[in-house]
Parts: sequence; C-alpha cells; structure tokens
Amino acid sequence: MPIRRFYKLYLSPNRKYVKSLKNLLGFVPGNLSLYRLAFRHKSVAQNIKKGVKNSNERLEFLGDAVLGSVVAEVLFKQYPYEDEGFLTELRSKIVNRVNLNQLARKLGFEQLIQYDTKMVNSTRQSSLLGDAFEALVGAIYLDKGYDFTRNFLVNHIIKSHIDIHKLEQTETNFKSKLIEWCQRHGKDITFELIGNQEGESNKLFTVQAIIEGEIMGSGKEFNKKNAEKLAAEKACEALSI
Amino acid sequence: MPIRRFYKLYLSPNRKYVKSLKNLLGFVPGNLSLYRLAFRHKSVAQNIKKGVKNSNERLEFLGDAVLGSVVAEVLFKQYPYEDEGFLTELRSKIVNRVNLNQLARKLGFEQLIQYDTKMVNSTRQSSLLGDAFEALVGAIYLDKGYDFTRNFLVNHIIKSHIDIHKLEQTETNFKSKLIEWCQRHGKDITFELIGNQEGESNKLFTVQAIIEGEIMGSGKEFNKKNAEKLAAEKACEALSI
Repeated sequence: MPIRRFYKLYLSPNRKYVKSLKNLLGFVPGNLSLYRLAFRHKSVAQNIKKGVKNSNERLEFLGDAVLGSVVAEVLFKQYPYEDEGFLTELRSKIVNRVNLNQLARKLGFEQLIQYDTKMVNSTRQSSLLGDAFEALVGAIYLDKGYDFTRNFLVNHIIKSHIDIHKLEQTETNFKSKLIEWCQRHGKDITFELIGNQEGESNKLFTVQAIIEGEIMGSGKEFNKKNAEKLAAEKACEALSI
Repeated sequence: MPIRRFYKLYLSPNRKYVKSLKNLLGFVPGNLSLYRLAFRHKSVAQNIKKGVKNSNERLEFLGDAVLGSVVAEVLFKQYPYEDEGFLTELRSKIVNRVNLNQLARKLGFEQLIQYDTKMVNSTRQSSLLGDAFEALVGAIYLDKGYDFTRNFLVNHIIKSHIDIHKLEQTETNFKSKLIEWCQRHGKDITFELIGNQEGESNKLFTVQAIIEGEIMGSGKEFNKKNAEKLAAEKACEALSI
C-alpha cells in the first residue's frame, strides 16, 4: 500500500470520512473537498461569491454530462443494431431522476448528504439523492479523470445496480400514463391530428394532446402513432406526471 | 514518422481520403470506417440489419453526449463563479444546431458528407452539417478515446472557432427571432396568456405562442415575460428556426 494511501486511510484527521467514501465507492478518493462538495445540498451551502453558493449544483451539471456520455457509450456498444431513437430512450430510462434517486438510496447516500431538513421537504429530499449522485460523478471526474470515472460507473454502478435489459423491456407508455392521470383527475383528454403546415412534408403528422381544451403537448413524427406518443410524453412533462 | 502513419498517408489505397481527413482534423485517423460512417447521411445509407441503416445517426447520438461532456468541463473550469443555470445556457448556445452547422460549414464538411441531394431539401441539408459534426466527435471518441477527443475539441475547435465570451454576451432572443420569422413568412403570431390550471400556483403564468391559430409552443414560468420567452423558444425549436 503506497504511503499516501496508508496515511489517508489510517492517520489523517479525515480518515473516518475517507473510509466511509472508500466503503461507498470502492476506491480511495484523492481531493476530498470535491467529494464533500458533491454531498452538500444548496440548503446548507454558503455564498462564496456574488450569489454563487458552494453547493453541489455546479458539480451536478458536470456529472450529468459525464454520466450521459458514459451511458451513451455503454449502450452504443451493447446494442450495435439499434437506432439512435432506441438508444436515447433507453439512456433516459437509466439516467432519469427516479432511477438515480433509487440508486443513490441503495448506495447509502442518505448518510453522506448534508442538507437542512427544515428547508427541504420530502419530495425534494428524494430528488436530492439523484442530484448528489450526478454531483458525485462530476467530483470523481475532476479527481480521477474520464477513464477512471467510466470504469467506476461501468464496473461498480451499471453492472451491479442497473438491469439494462429489464429497463429495455419496460416501456414507458406516456399515452396510457397520461390518460390514466386524466381519468384520476376527472379531466377530459383528446388527441387531435393537425393539418400539415405549409412547406411541410405530406408524410409528417402533427398530433396535439389536448386536456380540458388546452394543448398540453404536441408531437411531429413520420407516423401518427409516434406523433401521439411524443405529444403524450410532452404533456406528461408539462404536467410533471 | 512511424511506418503505419507513413503507409496510411502515402502508400495505402485510401491515402487521398486519409489526407483530406488529416487536413480537416489535424491528425491521422486510425479506423477509417468510423470516419466514413460519420460523414454518411441516412439518405445514402443501406440497411444493415432489421431496419438499422449504416448512417451517421448512431454516432451522432454518441458524439452529442461526448461533446456535451467536454463543453461542460470547459465551461465549469472557465467560469468558476457562475451557477449551473448560466453554464447550462451557455453550453446550449455552443452546441445548438445553428452554431454547429456554421462550424461544420466553416470546417469544410460539405465536401466530405455523403448525402442524396434528391432526398434532402435545403433546410435539412444545413442541419445535416451539424449532425455530421456530432457524429465525427463520436467517431474520434471511438477511434482515439476521451482524452484525445477532449484535447482535439479544446485545441482545434473551441479555441480556434468558438468565441465563448461573445456567445456569453449574446442573449438568444427567441421572441424577436420568432416574430421576425413570422413576418418574413407572412404568418400571424400572437402570444396568449392562459388561465391557471386547477391546483396550480396563482403565481404561475402559462403563455402560448400561437402561429396561424396553431399553438406552436407553450411556457410556464413565475413571470409572464419568462413564460413568453420559453413559449417562443419552444416554438423556434418546433419550427427548426
């Protein structure tokens, strides 16, 4: 064991924190302040300069991008005969907030995240886990580089905790999700096919998802079914369903 | 000069293609088939298996992710005191289709892209350039790895061709862009404030951008101006303006 590593794990004043990170991540972190930042929710952050807080939000921005790139490569290689639509959809199933929240909870992030319980309600608390996961990816990237982060994500996260094949099977059916929601809330929903716009290809279908007379989502695709699907997806997004 | 490199540039049957890529990219490519694929638009692609074509679309998916990650890091480091909202907005100004199209045109992609002029109209043709740029990033990533791709993008693309500081200053005014486009095409445009939905906060404004009676974009924000802005942005996106 190299001396630095030994010092960090057994002698340094931060040894307890280093050990808990090592248990979580499977490796000894280098720059501890990055990891502390990744686990610091904005509710406990301080202003460091002109309104910018030392919260994990900037790291979340970076980590989200790195995670997206790693997952893109994994899927690109794992599914050589699927098109980019399939890859995009499957990636969003993997990196969506609900999935990342569950993952972070399973990994035991709750003990590591610093946040103000008074300022964070229970809904936000759960998305706070997924946000911290992305921030952690950003921290690892800055600390150890892309290839390390990629190997960490592939070997410690994706292989052990994400069942890509299962996610592939579970189709997120936005149309039935939307219709169900409308039924539950006693709202009227229709899908309307809209005429083509000037200059548009005849083969293009535009469908609007209309709830209580208000257009909540619109989709343009080369077949009607997909246009409906897209309109439903956008409406779900607009309504945060 | 290593023998392989010498062979590729001066002796191989592909030496002409290798040279044109070297002129464009500044390095000698490894796996040529990846680069050929990056420049192959779907209009000239063949089916390789159950409906999947050997076009650049899968590489575009991968390259989009890698590019997003590299630009995220560049901005993260260049703007240490800006929040994630600023970083997200600036990144989208850099990697948006219009900007990537211009970039690809400037780099001379037009000579390299293979596409069927009969099947591609002029509007699509221009987004074809930006798409190919992203696909090229995917090809370089698979050929040379992340760090190489990152250095290539930073040193050959971002430093030489992208004025981040200027983009930071230019606010993309989607509303005036949309109105301008409507005037040019003789289309009627209105922005309509929609009543709140049941259960929604009173402070929330929903604005729809309506062109020729059709809702082309909708925005929900805590002030009317921002809701209009968002509606205009979505309409611009829907119309590929």
